[in-house]
Amino acid sequence: MTTTLPLLVTMGDPVGIGPEIVMAAAAAGELRDAVVVGDPAVLRRANGLRPCGQPVAVLEAPVDIAPPGALRVWQPSGLPTGLSALPWGQVSAVAGAAAARCIEAAVAVLQAGQGRAIVTAPLHKEALSAAGVPYPGHTEMLQALATPPDQPPVPVRMMLANPELRVVLATIHVALREAIAALDFDTVLETVRIANAAAKRWGMASPRIAVAGLNPHAGEGGLFGDEEIRFIGPAVQAARREGIDASGPHPPDTVFMRARRGAFDLVVAMTHDHGLIPVKYLGVEEGVNVTLGLPFVRTSPDHGTAFDIAGQGKADPSSLMAALRMARTLAG
Amino acid sequence: MTTTLPLLVTMGDPVGIGPEIVMAAAAAGELRDAVVVGDPAVLRRANGLRPCGQPVAVLEAPVDIAPPGALRVWQPSGLPTGLSALPWGQVSAVAGAAAARCIEAAVAVLQAGQGRAIVTAPLHKEALSAAGVPYPGHTEMLQALATPPDQPPVPVRMMLANPELRVVLATIHVALREAIAALDFDTVLETVRIANAAAKRWGMASPRIAVAGLNPHAGEGGLFGDEEIRFIGPAVQAARREGIDASGPHPPDTVFMRARRGAFDLVVAMTHDHGLIPVKYLGVEEGVNVTLGLPFVRTSPDHGTAFDIAGQGKADPSSLMAALRMARTLAG
Repeated sequence: MTTTLPLLVTMGDPVGIGPEIVMAAAAAGELRDAVVVGDPAVLRRANGLRPCGQPVAVLEAPVDIAPPGALRVWQPSGLPTGLSALPWGQVSAVAGAAAARCIEAAVAVLQAGQGRAIVTAPLHKEALSAAGVPYPGHTEMLQALATPPDQPPVPVRMMLANPELRVVLATIHVALREAIAALDFDTVLETVRIANAAAKRWGMASPRIAVAGLNPHAGEGGLFGDEEIRFIGPAVQAARREGIDASGPHPPDTVFMRARRGAFDLVVAMTHDHGLIPVKYLGVEEGVNVTLGLPFVRTSPDHGTAFDIAGQGKADPSSLMAALRMARTLAG
Repeated sequence: MTTTLPLLVTMGDPVGIGPEIVMAAAAAGELRDAVVVGDPAVLRRANGLRPCGQPVAVLEAPVDIAPPGALRVWQPSGLPTGLSALPWGQVSAVAGAAAARCIEAAVAVLQAGQGRAIVTAPLHKEALSAAGVPYPGHTEMLQALATPPDQPPVPVRMMLANPELRVVLATIHVALREAIAALDFDTVLETVRIANAAAKRWGMASPRIAVAGLNPHAGEGGLFGDEEIRFIGPAVQAARREGIDASGPHPPDTVFMRARRGAFDLVVAMTHDHGLIPVKYLGVEEGVNVTLGLPFVRTSPDHGTAFDIAGQGKADPSSLMAALRMARTLAG
């Protein structure tokens, strides 16, 4: 009966485009199997911009029954007040705290076996930081929430996918300089293992995983950097010895093009932008972010809070809707 | 009478795909206004793989007259012997030395006013290095050749272009770690100036230049790196004070997508792969490399020597042909 459990959709930063794309997705009929985790007043304000055409049913508990055709909203305890009076598109500590609280509450619902997957609307990293949340983004926060007390952190990786390309990132939200310093044999091998295990769960018998290099031309034999020789190549070989169909390190500038044409099922990228530039190049509408390695399915749109257009009712809900569809596919 | 001067096409590394794509371009009629600078025996071997369907006229001097319909080949002095007996696709110091000599000779012809532009077939950076050539690639070598004795190096930048995207690189063939260390205010500002000046020469009245950041989300306000705050943003502002229509720093993962959709005329990228991943993503066939800042026009295909398929007669000449067309357009 797991398929009757709801998808849990967090509202995101209250002053970003999150609430309005949630209402737009509801208007498109994409939230019939979902519960929105958020502040009802924030969502009503967004409904004024993008009417969802459905009555809003505020639930006492996420598993409560609602009238047929209603949009289900559950307000977790501990949300700050006054959120719906905040100005659109301005970094706010209270908005950041609210966004974080919704994620925390949604994960608790999943861990109680009352949800099917989590789909997160965008939060703003500066707002999160202003609120004193000790995680730079969703991925790191979900990792911490999924880790049992006194255990080492569950290894997770961020995957970005669109209909023609799947990219798994070895490093994410850190300065490029720090990303390079953080990369090593274990990080690369673990990324390949996580990618392989996830793809197998989705039904690929032996996923073809291309590992991109870090340096121009993958180091050109050591002329332009030695990370490929020191640990990226050895990690690929170690993965192959475990029976994983990994290859590389490939030159970063052509491996994504080759994957798009069908040469590989997934690409492991060393840095945030090596991976995200190609995924977003043809447009962010169909791009979905998936966190691999968690004990539950989590997807999100691959764009941010778009503070520059928040509150104008014109944000595109396509990527959120793609994330909802991806969550259904992966959660089964 | 400049348009009657020939395009100078260097053969590239003799054991890569250079010679065969040159012959394929000749077969397509693209070398009627060109002189190939290279070893006649190497080109004859390539002609066996990809017959150009034209008699080969070996010139004494690059401006010599050849029979109508002949493919003009000029052999510079000082080429090593035995090049056409080298095995395909294996790094060779003698092949690297020959490739370098052809470039040097072609530049001397341009500097003597006997050529219109230079179009270079690919060379192999390890072969160049094995030959003791003190430059990692074409761009650096051309820069040195274009610099008068006892002068500081002519500032040049590499641009990659296809029909929908033009990217100018602030750093190129160095380890990513070193690229980050090399970036500063002057490097970024000079890149913007070179891009602006070149685009004006091509006829853009006020080119819209987007400057990409270095770090994820362009540093997200300093959370993920400070290069944007310390010098990339200030360099953009300095360029604007000079009347250049520059903007940024923009997040690397979306700026190329926005440029593709028409928001900008050129993008300045901080690193080789931030810039080349999007240019190559849709395919390398139409991609062209242009060196900006030189006192002459230089274009090349945006792929390498492809040693894995060299000598098989199946390499795609599309990018070389696009480079020939771009050279004609830019040289006027």
